[in-house]
Amino acid sequence: MRQIRTPEEMAACAAEVKRSGRTIGFVPTMGALHEGHLTLVRQARMCADFVVVSIFVNPAQFGPNEDFASYPRDIEGDLRLLNSERVDAVFFPTEREMYPEGYRTWVDVGGLSEKLEGRFRPGHFRGVCTIVLKLFCLVLPDAAFFGWKDAQQFIIIRRMATDLNLPVRIVGVPTWREPDGLAGSSRNRRLSDEHRRHALCLSRALHFIREKVSQGETDTESLLARARRIIAEEPGVVLQYLDIVDIEQLDPVARVVPGTMAAGAILVGGVRLIDNVVFPADEPTAGRKEG
Amino acid sequence: MRQIRTPEEMAACAAEVKRSGRTIGFVPTMGALHEGHLTLVRQARMCADFVVVSIFVNPAQFGPNEDFASYPRDIEGDLRLLNSERVDAVFFPTEREMYPEGYRTWVDVGGLSEKLEGRFRPGHFRGVCTIVLKLFCLVLPDAAFFGWKDAQQFIIIRRMATDLNLPVRIVGVPTWREPDGLAGSSRNRRLSDEHRRHALCLSRALHFIREKVSQGETDTESLLARARRIIAEEPGVVLQYLDIVDIEQLDPVARVVPGTMAAGAILVGGVRLIDNVVFPADEPTAGRKEG
Repeated sequence: MRQIRTPEEMAACAAEVKRSGRTIGFVPTMGALHEGHLTLVRQARMCADFVVVSIFVNPAQFGPNEDFASYPRDIEGDLRLLNSERVDAVFFPTEREMYPEGYRTWVDVGGLSEKLEGRFRPGHFRGVCTIVLKLFCLVLPDAAFFGWKDAQQFIIIRRMATDLNLPVRIVGVPTWREPDGLAGSSRNRRLSDEHRRHALCLSRALHFIREKVSQGETDTESLLARARRIIAEEPGVVLQYLDIVDIEQLDPVARVVPGTMAAGAILVGGVRLIDNVVFPADEPTAGRKEG
Repeated sequence: MRQIRTPEEMAACAAEVKRSGRTIGFVPTMGALHEGHLTLVRQARMCADFVVVSIFVNPAQFGPNEDFASYPRDIEGDLRLLNSERVDAVFFPTEREMYPEGYRTWVDVGGLSEKLEGRFRPGHFRGVCTIVLKLFCLVLPDAAFFGWKDAQQFIIIRRMATDLNLPVRIVGVPTWREPDGLAGSSRNRRLSDEHRRHALCLSRALHFIREKVSQGETDTESLLARARRIIAEEPGVVLQYLDIVDIEQLDPVARVVPGTMAAGAILVGGVRLIDNVVFPADEPTAGRKEG
């Protein structure tokens, strides 16, 4: 496994792989890798000749009062994991190399970035889009893999790729969950046992919505009222939002139909967690039984 | 010469050329081609195996009160010219293909885009950067060629390419001028003979500055006062700005030294024209005779 520290070396490596006619699969991460990341890596391994994983805790996507400093970092553990997954190259640049002095170029997907997460994390997706585009330019992937746990991120990056005519396929991979339902997240490492137990209320509320939808309920307002109650009743948990929106425009919808999702964010023990459940357009839901 | 109308066909053509190991030189234009454009094409021809020219009057870089509708268009004449220059492919997509419904991704080079031209054309460089990035993603150039006539555009695109780690070399080509000094511009076609004569005051004012600098003058304020008078004395001409700035930050400077430029914009007969003269860092000027 090649360990690459500088943008120049990454660009040279990518150019060399492309020249040899091989395809590149890319998994951008912020490190502190868990099973969810490894699911992405295995998907990339299946789809591409050469797999690149980047590890970069991107300061541009953290707000001034967010957890950039305390975001989990474990480069030694990450490298061990990636090596055992037969990753071809890992790219872990420094902040200074990705944002040198005088850096001033930003990419924004207007209209989608301000919704859901964007209401609580202004500027977050601008930082995400910019670093992902920069990494694409260095890694030259044929396909890039993103988890559906960060559904809004996936939707925005797919939109950016389409809009900018990026020559890369954006692949979404289903959320990996712990046996008890908790969505895989690097931030889970920061939870105490007690907080971790409380945090389960978010996946439980989403699971409740999924269950009710599978039984034929489609009324958003009613579903959300009961799901929010599940979270409200959990001690030590603050609900930031829980909404049901369409997965193209991210606007609230009145009915759960194919192409919508329920998504939410909570704060527990000083840790912010997100999760969602998607009702895909190609999966029949109760709302369109005849369809 | 391949005539390409759709983004898909352009992407396929570029991928095919890259696979064959050939380099791509790219000249993005808005058409109504003149000798200045052909200078760029010839430079590309010298540097690359496969030369692509795009023709697209980009609506996103025109303000609501600007000349998008009246901007000169001459696709038949353009194709004839490019064919005789042995261009390999010309890409001229429609507006709908470049900005399909729901388009919402924008690239911005903060801090540089608001200065000089940006004061009079808010949003202009956001439109420029976005279309250039989109075209780069479709054409996959090894090198792209821009005229120094649009100096601020060149500086901003070079900054964007550096910041975003774009795998493309941005090459600046000196301004092509008519024998009487008028800088080549598609908009010159819209000038009557009389307005064209008046328009010369801008290149004359810039030439005055260059002359005085070559004679050892470096005081910006004094140079600009006299140069602005040249334009003020010309009938039917409105000066929008004439400034001397450094070519990295585009901030006004007190002295003309290597790495600065004088740049201005005028309105004449309803046509807006720009021009500049650069004092490059690698060309000795009076201000740093010993250097």
